[in-house]
Amino acid sequence: MSASKHHVTIDLDDRSYDIVIGAELLGNPGTYARLPGGGCAAIVSNDTVAPLFGARLATALRGRYSQVIEINLPDGEAHKDWPTLNRIFDSLLRAGSDRKTTLFALGGGVIGDMTGFAAACYMRGVPYVQVPTTLLAQVDSSVGGKTAINHAMGKNMIGVFNQPLLVVADVDTLTTLPQRELVAGLAEVIKYGPIADDAFFAWLEQNLDALLLRDTQALAHAIRRACEIKARVVSQDERETGLRAILNFGHTFGHAIEAGLGYGSWLHGEAVGCGMVMAADLSVRAGLIEPVYAARIERLVQRAGLPVHAPALGIERYQQLMRVDKKADAGQTRFVLIEAPGRAGLHHVPPDLVADVIRLRTQ
Amino acid sequence: MSASKHHVTIDLDDRSYDIVIGAELLGNPGTYARLPGGGCAAIVSNDTVAPLFGARLATALRGRYSQVIEINLPDGEAHKDWPTLNRIFDSLLRAGSDRKTTLFALGGGVIGDMTGFAAACYMRGVPYVQVPTTLLAQVDSSVGGKTAINHAMGKNMIGVFNQPLLVVADVDTLTTLPQRELVAGLAEVIKYGPIADDAFFAWLEQNLDALLLRDTQALAHAIRRACEIKARVVSQDERETGLRAILNFGHTFGHAIEAGLGYGSWLHGEAVGCGMVMAADLSVRAGLIEPVYAARIERLVQRAGLPVHAPALGIERYQQLMRVDKKADAGQTRFVLIEAPGRAGLHHVPPDLVADVIRLRTQ
Repeated sequence: MSASKHHVTIDLDDRSYDIVIGAELLGNPGTYARLPGGGCAAIVSNDTVAPLFGARLATALRGRYSQVIEINLPDGEAHKDWPTLNRIFDSLLRAGSDRKTTLFALGGGVIGDMTGFAAACYMRGVPYVQVPTTLLAQVDSSVGGKTAINHAMGKNMIGVFNQPLLVVADVDTLTTLPQRELVAGLAEVIKYGPIADDAFFAWLEQNLDALLLRDTQALAHAIRRACEIKARVVSQDERETGLRAILNFGHTFGHAIEAGLGYGSWLHGEAVGCGMVMAADLSVRAGLIEPVYAARIERLVQRAGLPVHAPALGIERYQQLMRVDKKADAGQTRFVLIEAPGRAGLHHVPPDLVADVIRLRTQ
Repeated sequence: MSASKHHVTIDLDDRSYDIVIGAELLGNPGTYARLPGGGCAAIVSNDTVAPLFGARLATALRGRYSQVIEINLPDGEAHKDWPTLNRIFDSLLRAGSDRKTTLFALGGGVIGDMTGFAAACYMRGVPYVQVPTTLLAQVDSSVGGKTAINHAMGKNMIGVFNQPLLVVADVDTLTTLPQRELVAGLAEVIKYGPIADDAFFAWLEQNLDALLLRDTQALAHAIRRACEIKARVVSQDERETGLRAILNFGHTFGHAIEAGLGYGSWLHGEAVGCGMVMAADLSVRAGLIEPVYAARIERLVQRAGLPVHAPALGIERYQQLMRVDKKADAGQTRFVLIEAPGRAGLHHVPPDLVADVIRLRTQ
């Protein structure tokens, strides 16, 4: 029997769309019944995910689209760049795909980000659907329309906001996910507690073991709650002019870790996990929260199996990497800090406090 | 004394903006007085245009922006590609430009298209201003928000719709324009007659010599009328789902000529000029207009100094190049045809009629 199916709506006027969460969704033609159909469907995936789910998705789509093509990219953050993005364009043009093409992103965050960006740019815009197959993508990157590729000088520097037509989060895809990636995804789940929902944080403390054992009901609940919070935030601030920035809790330190080590060394979720611990420390030093709350965040991150100590890149290098962060304002780095359990905001922080956190966490 | 200043508004709800047309605009700080200002201004130009107008624009902007940087790209359609686009991103990141940056496109259509695309993608979107310095850009490419780069398999295949904050069409910049480029720009001016305004077509027949002699009043009138028509069309159909396609009159054949010869061999306007003559022929063969009207179009194109005979690429090659045109629908090329003097529409045409036109025009 399949788990119950949840619907979460992202409310953005004419760009509104649904996230469907549950089991047995990906291969079911009914999941796609409300899409416009017609033209060509292009499934963009990678060498790891395509062999697992590609044929099932293609079969489910064949009735609605006149042509279904599959485009496989090399797997990994290291390939989130222009040459790889251009392989999508090459394949679409070779197949004669026109403006009535719909792209399907089948994979994790990298595939989702690249497919959404490719859809925005191909012939000045074709629609796309997110079919995330990692926990991280299901709770975070597939929702909200942020798309991008990396630049040698910074992560996700080149991209656009481009909302999908639909997000299909099939929990069955998580059964084949390597444990390290499940754990990395938990970082983005945990994130929603401190920034937006103290009760959810307590629920996570109670149910972390069930999530680590991939209990379907627990996973579906966590994904749903994460998507609900993200939906609310994105609906209020699609283009990250304010509120939405709180979703980047842990990401300023996290991006510096990823860029400093070279993309692909730590998983994004691992860097964010450690980044959240650092940002919680910084929130304490800025006088916003009690040390005991930061300690709870650290304990949960650590129990999940995520790193809580940062690589020793040197304080100067950290600060240099953080200055190019997109949240920077007139050259000054701003941090998402916890203001109280379940509430976050953007803050300027004296550089010496930041240096203290880096020094302590890299020992 | 400066010529009188014209304002044309592109009406697109919260993306509405003005086109200012006249003399002595580019170097006047007042031209930019309603822009948000603050942050960094990045002037994107090329090695030909920057020495002529770069310093003047930079001086005019210095009061409104905390930092003004200049980014110079190599000149020409051959460089309308990813590696060149990436030089804009490199420069912005090296300068530490954040999300409060405004890009200024100072140059012709290539610079405008690339700067608009770069603005759409840099940190997921920063604003930009068009300062077109060619006739073609002033009457066409700088207005309407189409941005793109070329792909090896087709022109303008990769891009987005991204409206500028303002378009500054300073007719003084046309005094230094090479005659070949002025003539190429006239192709896009002539275009507006057959597709939308028969009285303007007659005006052009009367005033072509004045335009070729760069009479400022005549140029300002032609630019204004072209922008007014384009503004009306774009306001009704921003994303080219219908009506807007008529602006591509002559472009399906024209793009095939450009791509077939290799970009940069013929100027875009030259290819469009010849393409309009071919599309007018096709309109006659499709039974839509009288041969005498097509002959008037051909005569005007020829008097302007534009080519009316197409390069002999072979019929097969033409048809192959036109199949990847973005206006294609389920693999079938559609053509913008003249339905009556001053009215155009998209049409499917029997391939043998298209072949006849190509055969005749390439003899």
